[in-house]
Amino acid sequence: MQRSIDQAVDGLITKALKTWNMVEPGDRILVAASGGKDSSIMAMDLAQKQSQGRLHAELAAMHIRSDFADSMSDRLLAEYESWGLKLKSLDVAVEGRLKDGRKMNCYWCSMQRRTELIRYAMDNGYNCLALGHHLDDVLETLFMNMMDKGVLSTMPPVMKYIKYPVKIIRPLYLVEERQIIQLAGLLGLDAISCSCNYNDNSARDKTRERIELLTKGSGKAKRAILKSLSNINFEYLP
Amino acid sequence: MQRSIDQAVDGLITKALKTWNMVEPGDRILVAASGGKDSSIMAMDLAQKQSQGRLHAELAAMHIRSDFADSMSDRLLAEYESWGLKLKSLDVAVEGRLKDGRKMNCYWCSMQRRTELIRYAMDNGYNCLALGHHLDDVLETLFMNMMDKGVLSTMPPVMKYIKYPVKIIRPLYLVEERQIIQLAGLLGLDAISCSCNYNDNSARDKTRERIELLTKGSGKAKRAILKSLSNINFEYLP
Repeated sequence: MQRSIDQAVDGLITKALKTWNMVEPGDRILVAASGGKDSSIMAMDLAQKQSQGRLHAELAAMHIRSDFADSMSDRLLAEYESWGLKLKSLDVAVEGRLKDGRKMNCYWCSMQRRTELIRYAMDNGYNCLALGHHLDDVLETLFMNMMDKGVLSTMPPVMKYIKYPVKIIRPLYLVEERQIIQLAGLLGLDAISCSCNYNDNSARDKTRERIELLTKGSGKAKRAILKSLSNINFEYLP
Repeated sequence: MQRSIDQAVDGLITKALKTWNMVEPGDRILVAASGGKDSSIMAMDLAQKQSQGRLHAELAAMHIRSDFADSMSDRLLAEYESWGLKLKSLDVAVEGRLKDGRKMNCYWCSMQRRTELIRYAMDNGYNCLALGHHLDDVLETLFMNMMDKGVLSTMPPVMKYIKYPVKIIRPLYLVEERQIIQLAGLLGLDAISCSCNYNDNSARDKTRERIELLTKGSGKAKRAILKSLSNINFEYLP
């Protein structure tokens, strides 16, 4: 049976692509496929959009195999193939790059992988790197920056590097994690998705819990917070 | 015994006055004295600054007596006198202005009183109205606007009206409510301060509780959130 991505999630990805003009004609997109549920849902939806003629761009996926996290299961690899998505893998000894006495953390690991993805993209003519950050990730970064650093900033939906001919896009920008979890369950992706066992992400997890308390988990409140970031009334700010 | 205002609170009021250039030479300030702890602490500090030659402006206070809330007690009136602050009163039938079927609420009542204060200020040559909103009030308004309206805005520290030759200033902008409660207790002002019995402020109270959960009550986190509002990194926003 041909499974189809949830309409609500598909619609939110369409809306994000349009709102921030993420994809332009001729773009060659490399999807960062971590093996986790977020990037799998993103990859599946972009592949579906492309096969239905709703996304006019070349598409491939790249999985960074590290020396400490589970690699993608054969079943998830088969899923990517069933979506018609070319999936390449690259071995990077992330843990091996750790300097003596340094502890692994999610931010550092993701930067190692990001660097390799950008390098691969440039070497192979991809000008667009799609990352699987969703609305809850965006709000976590926002509140960590506000409360810890006193800066109003977060992950942008589109970021063009000055140094590299590559842009980063985040097609899941408007999708709540709750929606992704639900959809991954429906599609049977939850059982075959993987993530690493470090999970040294306590500051982020704490912020996530606090945002749930602030918003009482309301998707409407979360979306309103996101909207306020591009709806700034400067006369009513200090 | 001459009592002195807490140094930390006094310092934060000095910092706010300077940061936003709230008072300019020749200003005539009317302090809005509700009878509550916030405006009493503000009035006391501004009077003390003036008597010590640290605030160069004319100062008077105005209390709006309404038809439904307790008026200032004689003991609080005596306090104002002991601070060397002229206190005037005006009777306004706030409840009597309610249209049939309308329920009293804090926002509407405060707008009625604000209008009368501005009218009195203009009729009597005051160009500056000092309101007792503190840091927690500012953050409550911020989060209500973000989560309910999708707008990034709050009460500004200084607001110049276009229609009237009057500006509003908020000298307690950097002071936490916790600090005011503690100081009012130390000074014995808590027992003689009053507020109305309506307190139909459930949306604001709910937001206040949620901000406490978000920040775990940390003054540092609250100040960082405030700071972020004037430290906006536009390249990292949607």
